[in-house]
Amino acid sequence: MSEAALLSPIINPMTSVFIQTLIRQIRAIDGFGAWDGKSDADLLEPFILDAEKRKALLMIDNPDPDVLSRVEQFYNAVALSIEGRSGVMVQSMMTMHPEGFGRMVLLGGRLVVVSKTLRDTHRFGFASLEKLQAEGEKLIAQGVEMIGRFPEAARYG
Amino acid sequence: MSEAALLSPIINPMTSVFIQTLIRQIRAIDGFGAWDGKSDADLLEPFILDAEKRKALLMIDNPDPDVLSRVEQFYNAVALSIEGRSGVMVQSMMTMHPEGFGRMVLLGGRLVVVSKTLRDTHRFGFASLEKLQAEGEKLIAQGVEMIGRFPEAARYG
Repeated sequence: MSEAALLSPIINPMTSVFIQTLIRQIRAIDGFGAWDGKSDADLLEPFILDAEKRKALLMIDNPDPDVLSRVEQFYNAVALSIEGRSGVMVQSMMTMHPEGFGRMVLLGGRLVVVSKTLRDTHRFGFASLEKLQAEGEKLIAQGVEMIGRFPEAARYG
Repeated sequence: MSEAALLSPIINPMTSVFIQTLIRQIRAIDGFGAWDGKSDADLLEPFILDAEKRKALLMIDNPDPDVLSRVEQFYNAVALSIEGRSGVMVQSMMTMHPEGFGRMVLLGGRLVVVSKTLRDTHRFGFASLEKLQAEGEKLIAQGVEMIGRFPEAARYG
């Protein structure tokens, strides 16, 4: 069974449009070229948190600015992917309370394309690269579906 | 002419639903009753900025937390008034950049009921009580109209 799994066509998440969009988002804020020597996998590494890493993260105080930056990069990559598939310009808006509790919305025209309550932001991350891609794709699909449901609100103004 | 104006029926803005809602918003955050002795006019006073007061405000550094609090109180009063007239629950979301440039949205269901770019937030205020009421009423009317235009998005989810 594990051999069959290995033989089945496995798509590398690294080559997916979403992960590539996310990598561009991360590289875009590197104004001084400090990460030019870093591989794509290096850049994604902080997004991946296994159970042990998660536990090690303290939930006290405000979330680290680097974590908040990753949350924004992730959702901006979702927004750009929704834009690419729908043709609707999508902008992100995040509010964050000191305890790591907040809200993220992706707005297209007058439509709330994606709405997420953020909890435990101190521990923002994904168990694996596959999970990161899957969560991104899920949100993109939800956003595209929402635009399909309310196209006039999404294209208003 | 000025006599005629004085004789015409003048509605006191203080008695308007919007201004009363705003006053309730302001008093709601006074957890320790520090403002119990303050009149409604006292509480509204910081919202009124004439030309001289505006000029005196420095635009450097981040907007004062008290100013941001007033921005939130004003838009929360708008949100509550839209709720009262439309029956749609409306929540505010604000992002603010250090230079006093930001965005305020009022969200009802999946609809962006009101969207405002915030500029010169350091100087948030209104030339008079009448202008404060008029701006509130204008936003309320816009929000109610937007809900009328996209009722399904506003009531979704």
